[in-house]
Amino acid sequence: MSEAVNYSDLKPAEVRKLIREGKITCPTSGMCAGYAQANLVILPKDLAYDFLLFTQRNPKPCPILEVSDVGSRDLHYIADDVDLAKDFPKYRIYKKGELVGEYTDIEEFWQDDFVSFLIGCSFSFESALLEAGIPVRHIEENCNVPMFKTNIACTPAGIFKGNMVVSMRPIPNDQVVKSALITGEMPRVHGAPIQIGNPEAIGISDVMKPDFGDSVTINEGEVPVFWPCGVTPQNVVMNVKPDIVITHAPGHMLITDVKNVELKY
Amino acid sequence: MSEAVNYSDLKPAEVRKLIREGKITCPTSGMCAGYAQANLVILPKDLAYDFLLFTQRNPKPCPILEVSDVGSRDLHYIADDVDLAKDFPKYRIYKKGELVGEYTDIEEFWQDDFVSFLIGCSFSFESALLEAGIPVRHIEENCNVPMFKTNIACTPAGIFKGNMVVSMRPIPNDQVVKSALITGEMPRVHGAPIQIGNPEAIGISDVMKPDFGDSVTINEGEVPVFWPCGVTPQNVVMNVKPDIVITHAPGHMLITDVKNVELKY
Repeated sequence: MSEAVNYSDLKPAEVRKLIREGKITCPTSGMCAGYAQANLVILPKDLAYDFLLFTQRNPKPCPILEVSDVGSRDLHYIADDVDLAKDFPKYRIYKKGELVGEYTDIEEFWQDDFVSFLIGCSFSFESALLEAGIPVRHIEENCNVPMFKTNIACTPAGIFKGNMVVSMRPIPNDQVVKSALITGEMPRVHGAPIQIGNPEAIGISDVMKPDFGDSVTINEGEVPVFWPCGVTPQNVVMNVKPDIVITHAPGHMLITDVKNVELKY
Repeated sequence: MSEAVNYSDLKPAEVRKLIREGKITCPTSGMCAGYAQANLVILPKDLAYDFLLFTQRNPKPCPILEVSDVGSRDLHYIADDVDLAKDFPKYRIYKKGELVGEYTDIEEFWQDDFVSFLIGCSFSFESALLEAGIPVRHIEENCNVPMFKTNIACTPAGIFKGNMVVSMRPIPNDQVVKSALITGEMPRVHGAPIQIGNPEAIGISDVMKPDFGDSVTINEGEVPVFWPCGVTPQNVVMNVKPDIVITHAPGHMLITDVKNVELKY
C-alpha cells in the first residue's frame, strides 16, 4: 500500500499538519478523498486589484475559492488553522518571470504586502466524473493531464491579459453530455467544457502534442473534451513578469476543509 | 397603454438612447422585456479593491455583472455603446454617507479615478418566476418589494462589513420548492433563497414591517421566502461614509444587452 493511499483516509487538518512539519513534500493527488484542493498565486498588493478583477472577468479558468487578507498567512473560509507559508508541500518562487527556486516552506520570503489567491482545481470535478463512471484517462495512465494553449482570448483586466489554457480529457461518445452536465454543476472548479470534439476551433493543431503536461491515449469512439484550466492565471501573471510571484509547485496543492460536493452550491 | 408598456418592446440600445437624451427619467421596471437590468455603485479607485473583494466574498447579495475599467464611462461585456454617466435614468450622489442630490446625468461630477460596479438585480429572477406561473406579490400590488435587515453577517473585506439585507416574496406552499430551484439556477442575480418560512431565524421580528420598500399581503397558505438583496452592498458602502459614492436611484437601473436567460450560464 502506497503512502498516498494511507493519506486518502486522513482528515485535511491532519495532512496539512504533516505538510507543515515537512513530513509530506510530494504531490497531493489522492490525499483526503472527497475534499477539494486549491491552487495558489501570491502577489504583492499593488498587483492584487488587477488580478482580482482578472479572475472576476474570467471565472471559468480562474475560479476563486478564497482571497486572503493583505499580509495574512491565515485563511477564514475554505480551511481553518492554515499557514499559507507552510501548508503547501512545495512552492515555486518567480522573480521578474523567472523561476528562482522551489521551496517546501516560504516563511523566510514572506512579505507584509502579500495577497494569496486560492483557486479551484479540476481534481474536484475529476472525482465527480469518476463517481459517475466516466473514465479519466490521465489518472488511468498515471500521468499529468494534457494541457494546451488556445486562441481564446481571456478578458483583460489592467495589466493582465493572455489566452486561455485548457485541459483535455478523452470521453467516450455516449458519456460526453453527462460529462458536460456533471462538470457544469461545479462552476467553482472550472465548470462545463469550453469545447467538445473540435480542437482546431480553439487553435489546437495536434491533440497528441500538449503544451503542458503529458499526452494521453484517445481510443476509438472517444472525443477530446476541453475544460478551462487553472494554468491560465499563472500564465497570465508570468506574462507581466512581476518583481515577485509565488505559486504552488504543480500538483502540490493545499488540501481544504471543503468537500467537493459543497462546491456545487 | 402606459409608457412603460411601449418601452417593453424596445431594444435595450433604443431605451438607453432615450435615457441618455433625458427623454426617460422614470423607473425602468418593465422596460425591454427579457433583458437584464443592473444596479450601480461607483467608488473612487482607492476603495475599489476592498469593495471588489467584498463582492467576491459575498456573491449572493453582491453578484457582479461587470466592473468598469478605472475612469472609464464605457462597458465592454454586458452592454455596448454605454455612457455610465448618462444611461441610468436617475443617480444619487452621497458624500460622507449623506445623500447630497439626485441627478439624471452625472457627467459634471465624473472623476478619473471612478470605478463602476454593475450588480445583478432581482428583476431578472422575478421574470423567471412569473413565466413559471409563480406569483410575485409586489408586482401584483404595484409597489416596491419588501426588504429587511437581517442578523446574517456578510463576510467582511478590508473596510467593508455589515449584515445582509434580504427581499421577501410570499410564495404559495406548493410552489416554494419550484421557486427555490428556479432562482437557484440564476446565481448572477442573487440565486436561491437564503431563508424559507422562518423570519425569526434571521432576525426579522415582523414580516409586515419591512425596513425598506413596502409591506405586501401574505395570504393563507403562503410562506414568506427571503432572498439576498442588492441593497446589501449599498448599505455596506454607506457604513463606511466614503468621500463620494454614486449609485442609481432605486428602481432607475441600467438596461443591459444580456437576456435574463443568459444569466443561467
